[in-house]
Amino acid sequence: MTTFPKRIALLGSTGSIGRQTLDVVRQFPEKFHIVSLAARSNVALLAQQVQEFKPSLVACFADTPEVEHEARAALPGVVLGEQGLIEAATHADADIVVAATSGLMGLRPTLAAIHAGKTIAVANKETLVMAGHLVMEAVRRAGVSIFPVDSEHSAIWQCLRGEETNEIRHLLLTASGGPFRRTALEQLQSVTVEQALAHPTWRMGPKITIDSATLMNKGLEVIEAHWLFGVPYEHIEVVIHPESIIHSMVEFIDGSIKMQASLPSMHLPIMNALAYPTRLPAVDGGLIRELRWADVARLDFEELDVVRFPCFRLALEAARLGGTYPCALVGADEEAVELFLAGKIGLLGIAELIQGALERHHSVEQPDVATTLEACARARKTVQELYQSRLSMVEE
Amino acid sequence: MTTFPKRIALLGSTGSIGRQTLDVVRQFPEKFHIVSLAARSNVALLAQQVQEFKPSLVACFADTPEVEHEARAALPGVVLGEQGLIEAATHADADIVVAATSGLMGLRPTLAAIHAGKTIAVANKETLVMAGHLVMEAVRRAGVSIFPVDSEHSAIWQCLRGEETNEIRHLLLTASGGPFRRTALEQLQSVTVEQALAHPTWRMGPKITIDSATLMNKGLEVIEAHWLFGVPYEHIEVVIHPESIIHSMVEFIDGSIKMQASLPSMHLPIMNALAYPTRLPAVDGGLIRELRWADVARLDFEELDVVRFPCFRLALEAARLGGTYPCALVGADEEAVELFLAGKIGLLGIAELIQGALERHHSVEQPDVATTLEACARARKTVQELYQSRLSMVEE
Repeated sequence: MTTFPKRIALLGSTGSIGRQTLDVVRQFPEKFHIVSLAARSNVALLAQQVQEFKPSLVACFADTPEVEHEARAALPGVVLGEQGLIEAATHADADIVVAATSGLMGLRPTLAAIHAGKTIAVANKETLVMAGHLVMEAVRRAGVSIFPVDSEHSAIWQCLRGEETNEIRHLLLTASGGPFRRTALEQLQSVTVEQALAHPTWRMGPKITIDSATLMNKGLEVIEAHWLFGVPYEHIEVVIHPESIIHSMVEFIDGSIKMQASLPSMHLPIMNALAYPTRLPAVDGGLIRELRWADVARLDFEELDVVRFPCFRLALEAARLGGTYPCALVGADEEAVELFLAGKIGLLGIAELIQGALERHHSVEQPDVATTLEACARARKTVQELYQSRLSMVEE
Repeated sequence: MTTFPKRIALLGSTGSIGRQTLDVVRQFPEKFHIVSLAARSNVALLAQQVQEFKPSLVACFADTPEVEHEARAALPGVVLGEQGLIEAATHADADIVVAATSGLMGLRPTLAAIHAGKTIAVANKETLVMAGHLVMEAVRRAGVSIFPVDSEHSAIWQCLRGEETNEIRHLLLTASGGPFRRTALEQLQSVTVEQALAHPTWRMGPKITIDSATLMNKGLEVIEAHWLFGVPYEHIEVVIHPESIIHSMVEFIDGSIKMQASLPSMHLPIMNALAYPTRLPAVDGGLIRELRWADVARLDFEELDVVRFPCFRLALEAARLGGTYPCALVGADEEAVELFLAGKIGLLGIAELIQGALERHHSVEQPDVATTLEACARARKTVQELYQSRLSMVEE
């Protein structure tokens, strides 16, 4: 049985997942207690959260001297830098660590939390995409649990309750298809940043919204699913489902398919990970809206057109190649999406630059943490170089 | 873990579910062994089945002297009558009893099997609708398991694997809506028997096909779900889903909905009940067709219009009234559907006669088996009387 209250270390408390995690804690104050809060740079919000949730420890990554200064002034006793994240993640009182930082920042703190015997609620894709082999090996050795917070992986995880993973035939991840599901290939080059940021069903940060528009995000989720559930890539499929009501499915060897549904909500997967194996009365408590089937009326499914979504294809290629290719994929994508958001390249330029970076990548098998981060940083640099050289060619 | 081979007693071997149970046994001969076979009157098919599956015991209900004679000649050692069904159901070698007889015939043999400590795979709705209180009490006392074979209940059962029943918010049974989902109320009276027998998604026997056209079948399923899963009627809903791909759903208190899907197939729920908790490789073995989501393309959901389906409303009223009302419902429906199939009344006449029988019914609380069967027989008679008196009024 679940022992409540569960004591939570929250990494990335000022981001979208972090704030929604605190909504869940606010809704069920008798079930959850915040032990530590860690954020990158939004000191004002972090200070508010500290006031409300009174954690034993507060950490700020503080990537600039200005943020560092601000954090010291506003947060007495704050622990700075990666050390702060690690102390927050390994706090002696914490039962479960919500790893919701963005990008690479979460990797070392997450591994530290695993070594410290904490349950992990993982909301940070990059951690598993880049270092799935290290994370899952550490999880096995420490004998801890790792629970997904992504809606797709939470759906699969829920469908697998009471089931045997060796009876899985396929995992089927659903994808909304993003804003360009029906856009012709030749028109994809000229879409604006605003169009790409207008996701039809989910409200998220800019990086993941662009990754959703290119379907890179779905590629990363396939890799995440591979590591979390130990299913080979050839048994993981993606199906387009524009309404984002079915969050994913599991097909078993007997042909039975289990699927999980709800109105789009991140509160639900967060709550599932925090309260597992208990389910909390969130519909009647008001946190989750009830899904009325007669209102939903219709669900659609269609095949994913990989030709129009080259980022998805590149993600799967990197996944199958293994080694540090997925790290290079993550780094190249981060840099290319920044160039797109800055208006410097078109949407299809993202895949072109990532492909260039992957072609130039020298992979290392079974990378350790440092090698992983290095491969990622190198690919970012390669993308920047490719962009500059392309720019100078245009200027000549 | 499951111990194979599982040894099966099959009651109703020549009916639709019985024959499909034998398909499953044929597909996985190393997993299942037939201990006993029992049928009502199809001696020729039963004799074939005996030859193929070589059971230790063969039983024939033989409701006429002709069938009795035929059975004695064709089946050496056959045990006749209800005694035959009971001996088949309680055979010392049987692990699991598939209760797939039609109508009331299965009630006593099923109770006998429970008392003998057998696992029950229940494909006979009437048993639970009429005597759910007796069956579930016997199941609890004997400490045996009862598994559903109906596709809707199998779906719910699968969705509940690894879940707590006290965390259920709603059970949602899906209904295809049958052939008259879109037919106006005033046209329902004049539909032909052939139109009513043309079910859009399922091939079944005539009685259950008419029950599907009137949605009586869905009402009986609600009652069955109430008993199987211990969920109050106010937490069981029905949603129309014409494609019959989603076989039913469970909504939990946190707002998460789990659903089970497959192409329409009775082999799947049969196999699920027989092999539980193991899932068998039936897709790659060819017994079950793979569902391709891009081919399915679209799923629809709409509210059930109870005005056009009075049988559904009557079933729920009988369920809420309790006592012997559900028994009267079953008896009245059997008689009324026979009158419809014989071309003697229109489709809406079924509900009218059932309503008349329920209005005239004197309910007994907590009925025993004999009272249950009596109430059912009495309602059949009432329907016949109502039909005759109506006929004489028309003739006058």
